[in-house]
Amino acid sequence: MAYRFKKSSINKSGLPPGTLVYRGKERQEEVKITVFNYSNDDYLEEQDISLEESLTYKEKAGIKWINIDGLHNIEVVKSLGEAFNIHSLVLEDILDTDHRPKVDCYDEFVYFIIKLFSYDATEEEIDIEQLSIILGDDFVLTFQEKEGDVFDNIRERIRNQSSRLRSSGSDYLAYVLLDVIVDNYFVVLDEIGEGLFLMEEDLLLEPSQDILPDIQQVKRKMIFLEKSVWPLKGILNNLLKGDNKLFKESTTLYLKDVNDHIEKAIDTIQTFRDIINGMMDTYLSNINNKMNEIMKVLTIISTIFIPLTFIAGIYGMNFRYMPELESKLGYPITLIVMSAIVIGMLVYFKKKKWL
Amino acid sequence: MAYRFKKSSINKSGLPPGTLVYRGKERQEEVKITVFNYSNDDYLEEQDISLEESLTYKEKAGIKWINIDGLHNIEVVKSLGEAFNIHSLVLEDILDTDHRPKVDCYDEFVYFIIKLFSYDATEEEIDIEQLSIILGDDFVLTFQEKEGDVFDNIRERIRNQSSRLRSSGSDYLAYVLLDVIVDNYFVVLDEIGEGLFLMEEDLLLEPSQDILPDIQQVKRKMIFLEKSVWPLKGILNNLLKGDNKLFKESTTLYLKDVNDHIEKAIDTIQTFRDIINGMMDTYLSNINNKMNEIMKVLTIISTIFIPLTFIAGIYGMNFRYMPELESKLGYPITLIVMSAIVIGMLVYFKKKKWL
Amino acid sequence: MAYRFKKSSINKSGLPPGTLVYRGKERQEEVKITVFNYSNDDYLEEQDISLEESLTYKEKAGIKWINIDGLHNIEVVKSLGEAFNIHSLVLEDILDTDHRPKVDCYDEFVYFIIKLFSYDATEEEIDIEQLSIILGDDFVLTFQEKEGDVFDNIRERIRNQSSRLRSSGSDYLAYVLLDVIVDNYFVVLDEIGEGLFLMEEDLLLEPSQDILPDIQQVKRKMIFLEKSVWPLKGILNNLLKGDNKLFKESTTLYLKDVNDHIEKAIDTIQTFRDIINGMMDTYLSNINNKMNEIMKVLTIISTIFIPLTFIAGIYGMNFRYMPELESKLGYPITLIVMSAIVIGMLVYFKKKKWL
Amino acid sequence: MAYRFKKSSINKSGLPPGTLVYRGKERQEEVKITVFNYSNDDYLEEQDISLEESLTYKEKAGIKWINIDGLHNIEVVKSLGEAFNIHSLVLEDILDTDHRPKVDCYDEFVYFIIKLFSYDATEEEIDIEQLSIILGDDFVLTFQEKEGDVFDNIRERIRNQSSRLRSSGSDYLAYVLLDVIVDNYFVVLDEIGEGLFLMEEDLLLEPSQDILPDIQQVKRKMIFLEKSVWPLKGILNNLLKGDNKLFKESTTLYLKDVNDHIEKAIDTIQTFRDIINGMMDTYLSNINNKMNEIMKVLTIISTIFIPLTFIAGIYGMNFRYMPELESKLGYPITLIVMSAIVIGMLVYFKKKKWL
Amino acid sequence: MAYRFKKSSINKSGLPPGTLVYRGKERQEEVKITVFNYSNDDYLEEQDISLEESLTYKEKAGIKWINIDGLHNIEVVKSLGEAFNIHSLVLEDILDTDHRPKVDCYDEFVYFIIKLFSYDATEEEIDIEQLSIILGDDFVLTFQEKEGDVFDNIRERIRNQSSRLRSSGSDYLAYVLLDVIVDNYFVVLDEIGEGLFLMEEDLLLEPSQDILPDIQQVKRKMIFLEKSVWPLKGILNNLLKGDNKLFKESTTLYLKDVNDHIEKAIDTIQTFRDIINGMMDTYLSNINNKMNEIMKVLTIISTIFIPLTFIAGIYGMNFRYMPELESKLGYPITLIVMSAIVIGMLVYFKKKKWL
Repeated sequence: MAYRFKKSSINKSGLPPGTLVYRGKERQEEVKITVFNYSNDDYLEEQDISLEESLTYKEKAGIKWINIDGLHNIEVVKSLGEAFNIHSLVLEDILDTDHRPKVDCYDEFVYFIIKLFSYDATEEEIDIEQLSIILGDDFVLTFQEKEGDVFDNIRERIRNQSSRLRSSGSDYLAYVLLDVIVDNYFVVLDEIGEGLFLMEEDLLLEPSQDILPDIQQVKRKMIFLEKSVWPLKGILNNLLKGDNKLFKESTTLYLKDVNDHIEKAIDTIQTFRDIINGMMDTYLSNINNKMNEIMKVLTIISTIFIPLTFIAGIYGMNFRYMPELESKLGYPITLIVMSAIVIGMLVYFKKKKWL
Repeated sequence: MAYRFKKSSINKSGLPPGTLVYRGKERQEEVKITVFNYSNDDYLEEQDISLEESLTYKEKAGIKWINIDGLHNIEVVKSLGEAFNIHSLVLEDILDTDHRPKVDCYDEFVYFIIKLFSYDATEEEIDIEQLSIILGDDFVLTFQEKEGDVFDNIRERIRNQSSRLRSSGSDYLAYVLLDVIVDNYFVVLDEIGEGLFLMEEDLLLEPSQDILPDIQQVKRKMIFLEKSVWPLKGILNNLLKGDNKLFKESTTLYLKDVNDHIEKAIDTIQTFRDIINGMMDTYLSNINNKMNEIMKVLTIISTIFIPLTFIAGIYGMNFRYMPELESKLGYPITLIVMSAIVIGMLVYFKKKKWL
Repeated sequence: MAYRFKKSSINKSGLPPGTLVYRGKERQEEVKITVFNYSNDDYLEEQDISLEESLTYKEKAGIKWINIDGLHNIEVVKSLGEAFNIHSLVLEDILDTDHRPKVDCYDEFVYFIIKLFSYDATEEEIDIEQLSIILGDDFVLTFQEKEGDVFDNIRERIRNQSSRLRSSGSDYLAYVLLDVIVDNYFVVLDEIGEGLFLMEEDLLLEPSQDILPDIQQVKRKMIFLEKSVWPLKGILNNLLKGDNKLFKESTTLYLKDVNDHIEKAIDTIQTFRDIINGMMDTYLSNINNKMNEIMKVLTIISTIFIPLTFIAGIYGMNFRYMPELESKLGYPITLIVMSAIVIGMLVYFKKKKWL
Repeated sequence: MAYRFKKSSINKSGLPPGTLVYRGKERQEEVKITVFNYSNDDYLEEQDISLEESLTYKEKAGIKWINIDGLHNIEVVKSLGEAFNIHSLVLEDILDTDHRPKVDCYDEFVYFIIKLFSYDATEEEIDIEQLSIILGDDFVLTFQEKEGDVFDNIRERIRNQSSRLRSSGSDYLAYVLLDVIVDNYFVVLDEIGEGLFLMEEDLLLEPSQDILPDIQQVKRKMIFLEKSVWPLKGILNNLLKGDNKLFKESTTLYLKDVNDHIEKAIDTIQTFRDIINGMMDTYLSNINNKMNEIMKVLTIISTIFIPLTFIAGIYGMNFRYMPELESKLGYPITLIVMSAIVIGMLVYFKKKKWL
Repeated sequence: MAYRFKKSSINKSGLPPGTLVYRGKERQEEVKITVFNYSNDDYLEEQDISLEESLTYKEKAGIKWINIDGLHNIEVVKSLGEAFNIHSLVLEDILDTDHRPKVDCYDEFVYFIIKLFSYDATEEEIDIEQLSIILGDDFVLTFQEKEGDVFDNIRERIRNQSSRLRSSGSDYLAYVLLDVIVDNYFVVLDEIGEGLFLMEEDLLLEPSQDILPDIQQVKRKMIFLEKSVWPLKGILNNLLKGDNKLFKESTTLYLKDVNDHIEKAIDTIQTFRDIINGMMDTYLSNINNKMNEIMKVLTIISTIFIPLTFIAGIYGMNFRYMPELESKLGYPITLIVMSAIVIGMLVYFKKKKWL
């Protein structure tokens, strides 16, 4: 289940600040480093290089984008951090994969923590992964928990000389990364919306009890998704007002666009929560109605037959002197009276709209 | 059902920003372009012109209002955008028909996204359509998802030389467009209010279970309507404070008036939500009361007849030595005792207010 | 029912802004114009004058208070508006009797929309009426939907030469009008509070189902009252900060006092809502308890007699060889066993606290 | 019941502002005036003096604290007000004992309205009384609804020459009064907390229905207490920022401390509300569980005996040709079958965890 | 139970401000004073010294950290306070162990109240303890309610000459203390999260009624934890803006980090509350479903056997003329009819999905 709190494997309390401790899931894969080094005219791409090689890019000309897949090798994060003069608190945050999304402005760089959603269609699970982006003057560092394909498209665009990315600065690259991540939110939200729609149809067709855990599960998902997006609300807009020198003026419009999308995602999540609450109401009401129906059946059967059984009981008594028993008409009259009671009851129930 | 999330037909995630992708419903109708070109003395109106023709208006004197019905032809949006120097992010937003309402101020123009409500009386459905308005120095561009008649009245006023519209600038035209859209909210809200009133009367007269889906449906509608209006709250007022040079001072009073109407619409929507919640309470309470009544009938019938049946059972036993059975008074006394029990029970129920 | 939304009789959408359309209830009475023209030394009072006459007061010296009862004659509002240079948007708002309360500052005047509550003791209904006050340099215009007596006391004070009103400016008159209206809120809220208290006592004495509609009704009233007062919160204080030249400094203290009263009214309304919610809880709990009691009676009767009836059934069987039936003690022993069962059951129920 | 709204005995609507009308409970006691006049070296204390005497203190040197117990003699409030130049709106507020707490800064004085809680142990009632404090340059006026002992301790400190009060200004006296009142909140809240704790224990031991009115009652109390404290939140801090010349800088720290205590009181009240809501949940759940248990007993008894009774009924039929009736084993076999059914049922219920 | 309000043993109301009264639990242990005196080159550590000794450190060079375990000896707090020039209101707050968390900036020192959570694994209880930190120019005073081991790690770091603590100022020591306390929140929250997870599994496996008090208990815990953290939100960030001269610029980054962790803790607590609410819903729904199931069993048994018993009753009547009784086929036909009814009922219940 992806929607539990990760219990930190290591109790960090009491360690000096800036002590680097990886707090995510344990992973076996090797940490993978990929580098793009590009300018308007030129571009270089290297997959799966060693830590030492990656450090050499610090001094190269052009825009450098170093992407790290996997955080469980603390040495990689530490060495890169030192090479690029990243504050140790930032490195600590990179490794704490359960951090709140945020944007921190330092003198030399801007640090983004943002959550990446991905939908695993086979397991019907949503995975929330933490992504750290460090935007420097001429470099962008990205740290992912595990390898993914969400940036493939951006890589393609870097390879294409005529793309705007090639002629823009590192701030534009950071923007494009944020944009892709936020656009991806809607892919996941679309999946959830589709699931909600199916669940609602189920609820109307066949109001079984089995749907409750599903509703609770999707409600829980929304809590986690909201927690992953909400803190970013308005934060990019503030970045613009703050007059950050790392963002060129031409890029600010784009940041505003990302901000719009984040607000749209939050809106969507909240509408989903409203819809889920409506489903809960419908579910509870269905259960109630079913109970009502059961009670009605019980009441109809009981109230029809209990008086009849009583009459039969009367004439089952063994008193010696019961004149009705001797009469030839006793039995048929009794049956007629019973039928009359049944008909009367049915009319009464009809009137009460129980039938 | 109009109140589902539209699943984007195309996954945009990963495309370069500003890539134009139409995200609305698929439509077959042809995109229709209408142009009004007017000044104080003169006016020209052209229906259903070609894209090329429409572009020629850019350079003409006077106020130009170009209205586009249908967004599914991306080429139209793109060419117009280029001709009027509209930023590609704005064009992207125009095509994303699920965008939040907003107002963006650019140097050369102001961009409004606003939702248009329309009530389809035959299907008893509310349609929420997105409308983009671009206000430039001497032009207004409007982009609608589909053809509608909401602006017919404005067209009439442009044709009338003595109308204030003819002697005012493009900002006044933009205001009039916003005013008409927001006034239209109340037409739709009036319909919903009327529907709520009928639903409430139904609820009081005949508290059937069938009303729950209706309540949920109208509740859902309110969620979507609120989402379509809420983000505009206060935004026009901010526009005024922001000292935007496109709005003449004489127009600002009018913008404030539109803002008042938006707040009134939000108030109304929230009151509707309160009313709907009250209806839910009434409904649930009705269901509960009905259950109570059923239980009462069952209890009354059972508690009256079960003891009687027991007495009948006693005298149905086949013991050889039962003195009562031999007595001539056995049967009538038994009947009298039974009647006494019935009367006692009825008195008890009366006292308990169950009858 | 006073707590429904008024369906606008006329669809205004599409009309030019400032088009005057009366949106209130249809009325037959004639519109009544009353004028007070007073200064420190002198005062003139005219009831029921014609529109033309009223317009002549514009140029007279002293403070002018023109009160209009009835808005359904658009011509009156329009002519007065033109004579006193009132903006057409204000005139439009005066006629829209469903407008939110607000205060708008124009250069030449201040425009207040405020709701007047009145309690109709015979119908036990609360009436919410809209009142527009326009405060100019030396005049005050008031527009009411229908004739009422809420201002009689103020009229008396104007007639009295020694009253502070006579020696103060138009701003003080405007304040006195606001003060009277807001003080009147508490008369109505007192009535409602009294009603709530009676309803609560009913609820405790006799928890019948009939009280639910009453609770819902008063809850609905509170929603409408809150909607009529809430938007004014803090608005008068803002007026003072805004350095409005129409309000003399000596009057600002009084405005603050009106603001205090508005906040107290809002507090009271919210406390009433809390109390009503508590009543709903009590009501639902009462219903639940009653159900419980019914179930208890059913269960006690059933669980006592069902086993007894079974025993009687046993000895009502017609097997040829049933030794108990032949025994002389069969019948009395059976009766003793039955009594023992009854006593056992009663002890059990006592222990369970069901009796 | 102390938690009802006081219905104003007199309808003030329409009276000129500043008209003094007492709006509290009717009282018979005489209004009591007490004066302390102290400086560093000297102090004078007079109990129960006449109004005329009290007015003479205005001109005396040293700090003057005039305390009035009882507001129902309007003349006293009016004369004092005139002597000390208090604005008539303030006098009006003093007499309106249902006013919201507030702090108003005038040029010559600061006016505090604050609520005093007191716990009446014999009646187990909380009394909320309004207290007005007027802080002037060298005087403090306090107005209480009725005589109380909450300030006795302060009086003792004034009498003691070495106390800080004697060497400080009137602002410090005002602070000490506020501090005592707010400290008193916690005495009352402690009582309520103790009551809540007992109520919770009751709820766990014996979940009877009688506890609901108690829960509702204490909930209501919290609403009124919150209403009496909440408006003061942050208001004293604002006073400090506002650079009020009546408060010496050395006193501001103390005001901040009072503010801290007010926030703590609000916190406590809100925690109490959360606890009460939890108790409501527990109560409702208890009621539900009891219902469940009743249903279980009914179901177990019914489902065991109804089939048995049916079997007995079969062999009670009078068909001439029923082979089982003739068999010697008929009766014992029937009894064995019945026992088997009982055992089967019990096993089934055991498995279902109903036993 | 740790989650009750402490009833102050002493009624402080009416005492002069700054009167020192210990308001925590009564304790028997002796108050323990520990001192660390360190600079870059040197360090001195003394455990369990007398009050007099501790006071001598005031004048020593280097950073002084004096930690007091136990507040019930008022003399210790008072003497230290006087020696270090701490305002008496601060000393009062130190002793009020139920104070809200806060940060107060004085000219000479900064005063932090922060809550320390600790998890007692044996009793499965969370303990909330108040901790006061006073940061001066070259000293840090910490006041704990009882001895604990949360700072052991920091002590170790002070002993280590190469640690950053040794080369930094008192502000860095204060930060490290805050950091350790806040990091500790997550240890406790992890425990709670683990407990929630187990509780949820229980809830799914075996929805017994016994879980409700546990849910209520953990809900209560969350209320208290939230109350203990919430007031700190954003307060450290404000500290930075306030340009406090006691915090060196290099330390501000670290304070921001502590602030991040506090916000994360608040987020986590709120998510826990959402999860607990979901558990309540599940629990209530489970109880409802169980009731439903019981009703179903009752209804099935009753509706099957009541008609059968009636038929048996018919033929148990003693009418002389009942032709069926004479027929040889009477009995078998009756049995067949009964079987048909049973089968019909079962089919009906199958269709209704009750079986």
